Amino acid sequence: MAVIIICRGEDPEGWKAALETELPDLKFRVWPHDAGPAEDIDIAVVWQPPPGVLATFPRLRAVLSLGAGVEHVLDDPGLPHEVPVIRLIDPGLRSAMVEFVTMEVLRHHRQESAYRLQQSRREWNLLHQPLAPSRHVGILGLGYLGRACAESLRNLGFRVSGWSASPKSIEGIGTYAGDQELFPLVERSDILVCLLPLTAETEDIIDATLLGAMPRGATLINAGRGRHVVEADLLDALDSGQLSHATLDVFREEPLPEDHPFWQHPGITLFPHAAAWALPEDASSILAGSIRQILAGESVPGGVDRRRGY
Amino acid sequence: MAVIIICRGEDPEGWKAALETELPDLKFRVWPHDAGPAEDIDIAVVWQPPPGVLATFPRLRAVLSLGAGVEHVLDDPGLPHEVPVIRLIDPGLRSAMVEFVTMEVLRHHRQESAYRLQQSRREWNLLHQPLAPSRHVGILGLGYLGRACAESLRNLGFRVSGWSASPKSIEGIGTYAGDQELFPLVERSDILVCLLPLTAETEDIIDATLLGAMPRGATLINAGRGRHVVEADLLDALDSGQLSHATLDVFREEPLPEDHPFWQHPGITLFPHAAAWALPEDASSILAGSIRQILAGESVPGGVDRRRGY
Repeated sequence: MAVIIICRGEDPEGWKAALETELPDLKFRVWPHDAGPAEDIDIAVVWQPPPGVLATFPRLRAVLSLGAGVEHVLDDPGLPHEVPVIRLIDPGLRSAMVEFVTMEVLRHHRQESAYRLQQSRREWNLLHQPLAPSRHVGILGLGYLGRACAESLRNLGFRVSGWSASPKSIEGIGTYAGDQELFPLVERSDILVCLLPLTAETEDIIDATLLGAMPRGATLINAGRGRHVVEADLLDALDSGQLSHATLDVFREEPLPEDHPFWQHPGITLFPHAAAWALPEDASSILAGSIRQILAGESVPGGVDRRRGY
Repeated sequence: MAVIIICRGEDPEGWKAALETELPDLKFRVWPHDAGPAEDIDIAVVWQPPPGVLATFPRLRAVLSLGAGVEHVLDDPGLPHEVPVIRLIDPGLRSAMVEFVTMEVLRHHRQESAYRLQQSRREWNLLHQPLAPSRHVGILGLGYLGRACAESLRNLGFRVSGWSASPKSIEGIGTYAGDQELFPLVERSDILVCLLPLTAETEDIIDATLLGAMPRGATLINAGRGRHVVEADLLDALDSGQLSHATLDVFREEPLPEDHPFWQHPGITLFPHAAAWALPEDASSILAGSIRQILAGESVPGGVDRRRGY
């Protein structure tokens, strides 16, 4: 019986050390150099596992994602059908996302980029500035992260609405659900924040039609996944003035290629997938709790519905 | 009986129109072109009145400031001794300051300026990032504005402390008071926010000694007054690395002179006194309430203690 850690672009040894501290009686392996016999593996803790690797463990009982999103697991065509996939529900990751989204909404609201441009030109010029209650913020995705961001923005006085696949109810927040109510939300969003899971339904959701439905001069914050956005449509919307600014934390290809037009676009503020993260010191106790529950045959929070994709 | 509006660098006609709507039975005059006879004036509504002007009204009963600060009134050596000075207590101005300070603290906390520099260099590089509960924010000044900012930052998870001349108590916020407790607060502040009134005691308070007492690499946000900061000492602290960044909204000379070194300093984010403002549409009802109380001989909230200076 062992747990294997498979993570690309992250430090697997840090996760191993933290999990060993939490669960000293269990064996932890690191893929690929210290994987051991495939038949030993009961549980996989993963970030972007290479397609096909999970299929090589004949006794696999669960896959635990190191992120809130699980498309990096579900995209694997070799993923065994009956093995449950568990997304990470990490208050630390949620707090980081609330900080990031609150900062970026405030920056868009307070025209921070315009003031930076003015500073570079030595221009002393006060811009017209409404207060938060005059600003409509729309949140795409009202899951564990979206809901917390919506509440933080509501507490700062913004008029906040959220959209989700299934109906939700959150105090002081307008809620919209299903395909029919997507555009009614988008049309009223001066600032639109994407925190959706990536599924077949949400891929490319931010396209020319959606961007064209936003109020002219609106802004976008994408902290979901790069594949939510049709990049050429976003550039067109910025260049035409339909969108006045976009903050992007995620991209179709990461790291963003050096010759990508996003880097130097004056209407784009970009971050290197820095909005929110799971840290071994915070998240290992949550993972350890899930591992204990799986081994005891109990149900685990964060179970993914594979048909929905989240 | 009349009210005179004296404001430099603002639109007096907008204030006049808004106040006439609130108080249709009163006469409003605009200095200097429509001042009328000096003996008609009972009340002055002012922003930066030229020294000596207030002394020309023999029947003046009160001076109402169009800002939260009143040093622009008290600095007038000709200000009649017995006339009460009233500062503006405006929830709209307070909300604007909370938005601004929350945005700037989040930007310093999340290393937003470093990410902008990286973007300009096409660098994809994740910076080490603690969460808000690991960050100490110190607020100089716990008045109407400072207290609201402290509470907003506390609600986002920051460890917040505040300093004021007289002792205060605010839930979830460490409070420090008086000269003896200034440096104990400063020494623990990773991010220091100045929201003090400008008085003889607070002028030049942010000098080499205070900046040197902050943790190395700390940051500063000045949304008080330019005269709180010794400019040469601030530049030295930034250039030596003692301070890693400063956001400045206020300056000793406004507009900031075009050849001032602040404009192009890589460690300085500057705004053209844009943090918070009183708008006629929001603040005129508050001013009208004060005018009614003064004319009825009632006491008015916001009365200034001239010896304290706020």
